[in-house]
Amino acid sequence: MIDNQKLAAALRSFAAERAWDQFHTPKNLATSISIEAAELLEIFQWSRGQQEWDEVADPSIRSKVEEELADILLYIIRFADKSGIDLERAAERKIAANAVKYPAERFRGSDRKYDE
Amino acid sequence: MIDNQKLAAALRSFAAERAWDQFHTPKNLATSISIEAAELLEIFQWSRGQQEWDEVADPSIRSKVEEELADILLYIIRFADKSGIDLERAAERKIAANAVKYPAERFRGSDRKYDE
Amino acid sequence: MIDNQKLAAALRSFAAERAWDQFHTPKNLATSISIEAAELLEIFQWSRGQQEWDEVADPSIRSKVEEELADILLYIIRFADKSGIDLERAAERKIAANAVKYPAERFRGSDRKYDE
Amino acid sequence: MIDNQKLAAALRSFAAERAWDQFHTPKNLATSISIEAAELLEIFQWSRGQQEWDEVADPSIRSKVEEELADILLYIIRFADKSGIDLERAAERKIAANAVKYPAERFRGSDRKYDE
Repeated sequence: MIDNQKLAAALRSFAAERAWDQFHTPKNLATSISIEAAELLEIFQWSRGQQEWDEVADPSIRSKVEEELADILLYIIRFADKSGIDLERAAERKIAANAVKYPAERFRGSDRKYDE
Repeated sequence: MIDNQKLAAALRSFAAERAWDQFHTPKNLATSISIEAAELLEIFQWSRGQQEWDEVADPSIRSKVEEELADILLYIIRFADKSGIDLERAAERKIAANAVKYPAERFRGSDRKYDE
Repeated sequence: MIDNQKLAAALRSFAAERAWDQFHTPKNLATSISIEAAELLEIFQWSRGQQEWDEVADPSIRSKVEEELADILLYIIRFADKSGIDLERAAERKIAANAVKYPAERFRGSDRKYDE
Repeated sequence: MIDNQKLAAALRSFAAERAWDQFHTPKNLATSISIEAAELLEIFQWSRGQQEWDEVADPSIRSKVEEELADILLYIIRFADKSGIDLERAAERKIAANAVKYPAERFRGSDRKYDE
């Protein structure tokens, strides 16, 4: 369980205590999510073939991954909080929409989606 | 509350039913998070000055934002699930680390962080 | 004049001398361009309103900007070289296509493009 | 040869004819480069292993790649033009700096750079 209300409240206090709310515009938060996403991607920048999941188990890689995922999560919680969006509901809707968009019987064993 | 275990399980079934697990390498999921983050950013690409939060309240912008935030959330939940990372704990650790890194009394009313 | 043939040849030698050609797959180079683009963006991450061009004239900002632009340019020259794409011709075509897509008389003084 | 002065002049006229110069702030152009970079990356989003260069030779992939590379090139030329940066010189400096940073004898046949 991710207690996003509690995390959002912590981020709200954090920003208020530093008077940083003024920096948290939609464009700046969206920018920040992109930057953190690129930092996650950088961990896998030069992999030949593909690094597999057991490589992520390496403690030094794992702790970097953990940190970048946390940064991204915190920024999307902050973005959702500032804009009054219910993340849980948005995620559930999206899963339901994807089930309609990609019917299992049609896409099973196929990478068609990935070529479109 | 974001029930990330339930969402992770739904994503697991979703991938299994379509035999898409093979595509969900660390690099591909990190790539996907960056792509979705850029789609969120695109909503604010050309804003002069900064679009403010009341503009995000516009229903057509809001529903795009909601969708992109959901995509990002689902991909980080999937990434965390594949790598056995506890997102809730990672987020709490990160907030604690930030409190140490940016002491309120030193950064209050200042944008020094942003210039460093 | 950007002598992209000369720069491409220099990058080719650089990779050959280090046996790095094996890392320069399409996906890895595309990943690298995204990462460098995010580093450029990071310079403007927290700007309130928008930093204007005179702020980029600040020597420390300017030298960071210069470095990130160079990184991006070198990676797209490398990508074009590996895939046999003529960048000059591609850029000219794109300008011509944009002139058709956004007729001046229809878009003049309007930010419609930016709202679409 | 990429005639960046000619391309910069074309972009200048293009923006002037549409009164779009006002949108071309440093942050907006940096944002645009990131978005175009993500569109290039999207072409390779789901590749298992790595797509190789002969796959980029496929006409439909190639034409998308060409378009995204052109977009990125045009935006960095525009960014350099607005900030008075000499791209050719920046690229030459960067190659020289990389030669110092990664001595061939130390990095040859090694992917150490990529693990750092």
